[in-house]
Amino acid sequence: MTSQDRLRIWIEQGNVSISQLFFSSYKQLGIRDLDALLVLQLMSFAENGQGLPGPSDLSARMSLSDEEIGNGLQRLMQSGFLTIERTMDENGVLNENYSLQPLWTRLVDAQVLGCSGKEEENRQAEEG
Amino acid sequence: MTSQDRLRIWIEQGNVSISQLFFSSYKQLGIRDLDALLVLQLMSFAENGQGLPGPSDLSARMSLSDEEIGNGLQRLMQSGFLTIERTMDENGVLNENYSLQPLWTRLVDAQVLGCSGKEEENRQAEEG
Amino acid sequence: MTSQDRLRIWIEQGNVSISQLFFSSYKQLGIRDLDALLVLQLMSFAENGQGLPGPSDLSARMSLSDEEIGNGLQRLMQSGFLTIERTMDENGVLNENYSLQPLWTRLVDAQVLGCSGKEEENRQAEEG
Amino acid sequence: MTSQDRLRIWIEQGNVSISQLFFSSYKQLGIRDLDALLVLQLMSFAENGQGLPGPSDLSARMSLSDEEIGNGLQRLMQSGFLTIERTMDENGVLNENYSLQPLWTRLVDAQVLGCSGKEEENRQAEEG
Repeated sequence: MTSQDRLRIWIEQGNVSISQLFFSSYKQLGIRDLDALLVLQLMSFAENGQGLPGPSDLSARMSLSDEEIGNGLQRLMQSGFLTIERTMDENGVLNENYSLQPLWTRLVDAQVLGCSGKEEENRQAEEG
Repeated sequence: MTSQDRLRIWIEQGNVSISQLFFSSYKQLGIRDLDALLVLQLMSFAENGQGLPGPSDLSARMSLSDEEIGNGLQRLMQSGFLTIERTMDENGVLNENYSLQPLWTRLVDAQVLGCSGKEEENRQAEEG
Repeated sequence: MTSQDRLRIWIEQGNVSISQLFFSSYKQLGIRDLDALLVLQLMSFAENGQGLPGPSDLSARMSLSDEEIGNGLQRLMQSGFLTIERTMDENGVLNENYSLQPLWTRLVDAQVLGCSGKEEENRQAEEG
Repeated sequence: MTSQDRLRIWIEQGNVSISQLFFSSYKQLGIRDLDALLVLQLMSFAENGQGLPGPSDLSARMSLSDEEIGNGLQRLMQSGFLTIERTMDENGVLNENYSLQPLWTRLVDAQVLGCSGKEEENRQAEEG
């Protein structure tokens, strides 16, 4: 392998951009660690054009079983963080994709609440 | 809260860029799911200028206990994915930061092995 | 130089995440090409912790003269895309940083207008 | 427009991750500012799945004429920064995409040269 090859492989794979808000605040929203990792895998698949990966796609990349992954996805949907979005393309074909939009909105809301007053009160309580 | 405010909060938090290679291949390297999430949190802290977060920084954002986080970090270091890098700044002050460089190299190596032959053999076996 | 070295150098430099909206729509907002490049350089400096690079920092990376850069920054400020934000840190030290927040809001607004009929009307008017 | 709408639009557009190396060093490689912007637009199109945008796609987003864009692309190819990569997909269909791989390699090389020796000489000169 020549020196360029490693670099080429790295770059060709591309990146996923993930908001710092997710890392700092998913726990505040009550999302479990493994469900957070599931969210990240959904983002990785979406970035590669796979908007609705199945449990087996996900379990190929994680140590969870298909059933555990199904349960995780269901938890995320029942908590209102994840939805399935149906869109029609130009040829009238129906597309279904996971949407994490509700999660992003909730993360921003949590940040707003955390910044305005509540957090400061806590600090004062700790210091006092 | 006006519509600009939400957008401002979102943008101000910034992003972490994570290689697709990590999501597709950490399992192949034998990294557990929760340790993978630990790696991602280290990247998130590093992006914000905190290169050596302590177990309590990490446990504030995850559901793991300080002890479980300590064990996870140790596993990553013992497997040679994570190191601590010491550098001296202009004023002679010693800085210690986690480095994930060994992990990135190993991920690229795994990709090279996966692409060259082995994967193709499997495909032929499946088709034949 | 070994193959790892190149990869290490590449990764150590880090990335800047830039919204697709910027690339697709700065022209619509009346931003000149070279001023767009100036915006991108400001983002690159900010990502590295330099929130208020001077004209000479910028001209070291671009073929524009200090004067042309000063003019470009002024154009961006006069059009209301760029502001200087003053914040006080914990020790009472005043910090000044460029803020591109007004530009991001305007880009989203342009996108909203573009999506809601208006653009199509214009096209029909042009074609008709 | 409700408060969520702006945020949704922003997030839906997605990001392009661009190496800091590009911003800090394209000038060193002799790349003109407007050609640098052309490179960034190519990355933006590629991220959206358009690997070989035509001059008119590019001129719709920039103030350059189709001819100026054609000249810029040619300059980048003649300097060996940009190539056209031909690949065959599973159905035997030939795909052509711009590749910026040669540019990334050259940027890393420039960084290596800049770090080893030259920069150290300067430091010694300053210290001596």
